[in-house]
Amino acid sequence: MKRTPTGAAVLQPEKTASITEAVLAELAEAGYGRLSMEAVARRAGVGKSALYRRWPGKAEMVTAALSELSVPAVPTPDTGTLRGDLGVLVEAMHAWLTHPLIARILPDVSSEAVRNADLAEALRRTVGDPRRDMARSVLERAAARGELALDVEMALDLVGAPLYWRLSVRHVPLTPGYLDALTDALVRAVSRP
Amino acid sequence: MKRTPTGAAVLQPEKTASITEAVLAELAEAGYGRLSMEAVARRAGVGKSALYRRWPGKAEMVTAALSELSVPAVPTPDTGTLRGDLGVLVEAMHAWLTHPLIARILPDVSSEAVRNADLAEALRRTVGDPRRDMARSVLERAAARGELALDVEMALDLVGAPLYWRLSVRHVPLTPGYLDALTDALVRAVSRP
Repeated sequence: MKRTPTGAAVLQPEKTASITEAVLAELAEAGYGRLSMEAVARRAGVGKSALYRRWPGKAEMVTAALSELSVPAVPTPDTGTLRGDLGVLVEAMHAWLTHPLIARILPDVSSEAVRNADLAEALRRTVGDPRRDMARSVLERAAARGELALDVEMALDLVGAPLYWRLSVRHVPLTPGYLDALTDALVRAVSRP
Repeated sequence: MKRTPTGAAVLQPEKTASITEAVLAELAEAGYGRLSMEAVARRAGVGKSALYRRWPGKAEMVTAALSELSVPAVPTPDTGTLRGDLGVLVEAMHAWLTHPLIARILPDVSSEAVRNADLAEALRRTVGDPRRDMARSVLERAAARGELALDVEMALDLVGAPLYWRLSVRHVPLTPGYLDALTDALVRAVSRP
């Protein structure tokens, strides 16, 4: 049985915020594998019990911290055009992936998740799925207007993937005009001709 | 100074092949961080000197082994149509990413490369760049025929990224017809309307 947080009503938000900051700093320095609850507690200046009151374990603590930097970063634009909406999503994806902490933490945590099913599940539940759900709402409006040439799930794969591949996998900086040209290509890819 | 292989003319290809197999098995089991030259030599039934005669160190040995599974896996189709050529590239990318060893090793080694500049450079030189060069030849023919609406580098990002994102990052299996529909979307994305 996992321990579940209790007494949520009395948790202090400022303490949660400083623990989150400590988790992200430890992740960036040590990586997921070497991160310990002790080191996070020490860096945040709290006892380990303050961590276990909030999260049942390391995977949930780490993905909750990543979620703070990741889920609010997805906008749900409604500019009136698919080109406008996709442009906003592309810019936001770029800003997220080039955030110094995300750029350092995400590949490491994603790789760890390959060998750690609990972490993979927590990452999917608290970061991947909520981000995708928010972007999905944009594509679903386009689908409802009859503008999509493919299903929404494939459209989401196409929108998220190229910047991740280039920035987080290949580590190649963008050339000038890249985001605009990518947005144009995505509009062609997902739209009915 | 790095040690460089000497006496390449007398290296036995069968021994190289069994070392490569041992490297890939160790990578899949232990991951890059815990892989040791000793363990590879033991598994291959050779002395450590047999490794150092072939590669200056761990990064070069690992990326050479990965290269064997990765570079010949990229076809250079010339079917006469962009749709045909992209379809072949997409099928080959799918086969590569779902290869049991690649699926296990690639995210781990890629993540390690974030913290290890020598490994990142070796991975780029022996796996990433040669694979991309081969795919580039296909896109350059389309560009020469005046068919591309965007530059070849962005076209390469678009072709490689969605399957990597879905299979190696999100770990979501493909739905039926996915590869065909993706190929259609890529044709729209890269082609002049």
